[in-house]
Amino acid sequence: MRRLIRESAEERFISAITAMLPRSLRQINGVHEADAELIEWSGGTLAVTTDTLAEEIHSGLYRDPAFIGWMLAIANLSDLAAVGAEPLGLLTAMTLREDSGPEFVRGLASGIADACIRCGTFLLGGDMNFGEHLSLTGTALGAVPSGMHLTRIGCRPGDRLYVSHPAGGGNAFAFTLISSASGRSELVFKPVARIAEGIALRGIATACMDTSDGLLLTLDTLSRLNECRFGLTADWNRCVHPAALDLCRAMNVPAWAALAGIHGDYDLCFTVRASDEQSLLDTARRAGWSPIPIGEVTAGQGISIVEDGRETKLDTHTLRELSSAASRDPRSYVRDLLGFVHRTGAGNTVGREG
Amino acid sequence: MRRLIRESAEERFISAITAMLPRSLRQINGVHEADAELIEWSGGTLAVTTDTLAEEIHSGLYRDPAFIGWMLAIANLSDLAAVGAEPLGLLTAMTLREDSGPEFVRGLASGIADACIRCGTFLLGGDMNFGEHLSLTGTALGAVPSGMHLTRIGCRPGDRLYVSHPAGGGNAFAFTLISSASGRSELVFKPVARIAEGIALRGIATACMDTSDGLLLTLDTLSRLNECRFGLTADWNRCVHPAALDLCRAMNVPAWAALAGIHGDYDLCFTVRASDEQSLLDTARRAGWSPIPIGEVTAGQGISIVEDGRETKLDTHTLRELSSAASRDPRSYVRDLLGFVHRTGAGNTVGREG
Repeated sequence: MRRLIRESAEERFISAITAMLPRSLRQINGVHEADAELIEWSGGTLAVTTDTLAEEIHSGLYRDPAFIGWMLAIANLSDLAAVGAEPLGLLTAMTLREDSGPEFVRGLASGIADACIRCGTFLLGGDMNFGEHLSLTGTALGAVPSGMHLTRIGCRPGDRLYVSHPAGGGNAFAFTLISSASGRSELVFKPVARIAEGIALRGIATACMDTSDGLLLTLDTLSRLNECRFGLTADWNRCVHPAALDLCRAMNVPAWAALAGIHGDYDLCFTVRASDEQSLLDTARRAGWSPIPIGEVTAGQGISIVEDGRETKLDTHTLRELSSAASRDPRSYVRDLLGFVHRTGAGNTVGREG
Repeated sequence: MRRLIRESAEERFISAITAMLPRSLRQINGVHEADAELIEWSGGTLAVTTDTLAEEIHSGLYRDPAFIGWMLAIANLSDLAAVGAEPLGLLTAMTLREDSGPEFVRGLASGIADACIRCGTFLLGGDMNFGEHLSLTGTALGAVPSGMHLTRIGCRPGDRLYVSHPAGGGNAFAFTLISSASGRSELVFKPVARIAEGIALRGIATACMDTSDGLLLTLDTLSRLNECRFGLTADWNRCVHPAALDLCRAMNVPAWAALAGIHGDYDLCFTVRASDEQSLLDTARRAGWSPIPIGEVTAGQGISIVEDGRETKLDTHTLRELSSAASRDPRSYVRDLLGFVHRTGAGNTVGREG
């Protein structure tokens, strides 16, 4: 799930395998260029993606079996949303522990079923093994009309940057869970895949990616892939999730801190040409949805926070380095991340609401 | 991969989830009815399947990274072959150990690449994580012309039973590996997915399944799904892999013993109407391939071995029970399996060749 984080090893693997193997002529996207693989077939475009839920379970972030099942489905369906695909269905490949009781199995099944129903799709089948260690992988299959798919590539300076929904809820959830002595969070985190929003963005978004890695790391990936810079001029009260805003206020840190962690929201982050902004807002309004503007694409690289006329460039290299330790040692990660926010110094702390 | 083996837990999961979730109207096959899920889309049929390589790695059967990568690809592509699909590509979801060195990663990549090239297909993409335990899941996507897919369902008494290639090589490989003090086998085992054979069987096979679980367990599954019995009247010298025959001769056990283990061959096991037998042989000859007759479908249930006019029914329930312990304790499994063969008493031991 954590794309491009452990670049060295993942890129080593991808370099090794791409050097040995031709790519399919049917494949539309290059390596890393889309959240799901895009394949031309029979006059349309298939989207297929596979994702393992590992770090969140082993680090103890996901414990309830129904929540684990839900997240397994959503993590995969969200990648379909980001390419503008409509799901055809989900498959699961699960290795359960030998001592998994019937309650765990039923919980897992109910979570997967609920997520499929919520996203209007189906469980097509799968594979089940038993072993010493829990391992859960999903695969989602979807379709897009020919030429209407979205990729991560295509934004350019002047484009406007949006998120589909307020961001930072996933990080707020992870933070409260990691910080709590009981290992429980009072925050409810139950993301959905933004299928309808992805479909609405067909033909409008110039680049699109889901925020499963957290908003700032998602922007870092988009910045590197598109060789551009994102200037964030957001109204934080609108673009940051209320629970995350509360947390930032209580901790006396700027609102963008809630976007810096690796636990994402599974919403969509996308760009549109400035000339298409009105068309986006009209399309979204008809779909009953309000995209949230957060900044614009400029020449350069990386991410800047622009507030009160002051521009602060984020050290995304360090941000990414920190995130690689997140699952190994979540408490140290939170501490290091807060240190990063304080050192950066950008942004005002969150004021009282209203 | 071990389908229907741990029935209680897997069926519990499938029952739980199917009770909660409607099935897609686009899905052609019912639960367990095909090696890959079959989805109607855009005037054709998509085939998609996912499979985790777990037990073979944890039990130490697969160690070489290139072989592991090869088997990850083949296990999935073989399921496409069994539904008559042509592959569109493969995806991999891998959790590598933190201490996996570059050689392991390169080996894995080369094995996957080699298998894709051998089967005329492509790696489309995937997901990579790092964790404490190695976990490898593949997904294969393919397509069949509408109405031409193969399933496990449809054979009836009178149909002829075939294997695509001599069987038992996988079990011979596993046996020599488990029995050797060095943990190495002198037997070369490098199965391929029988894509061309599956395509040749379109419109001819009444039921088809790959032999990834070993031939007898595959027949047991087909027997239960089709509520029929398989009478094996095979010429063992033709239908059993030469290396497996040698082993049976050396151990003084009947040749069918080589088909009883859980380590499969990834070939195809299929049935045809008696009236289509000539058409099968003609089609196969044009494809440069010789299907091997091994028996026929009769009324009843289970598997019988017919030799010298004597029919012995196999206790497939016990065979399946034994196999569930195979990965936990391979040496005991081999011992118990040989005990099962001796108790059954069917079949002559293997004579000298020629």
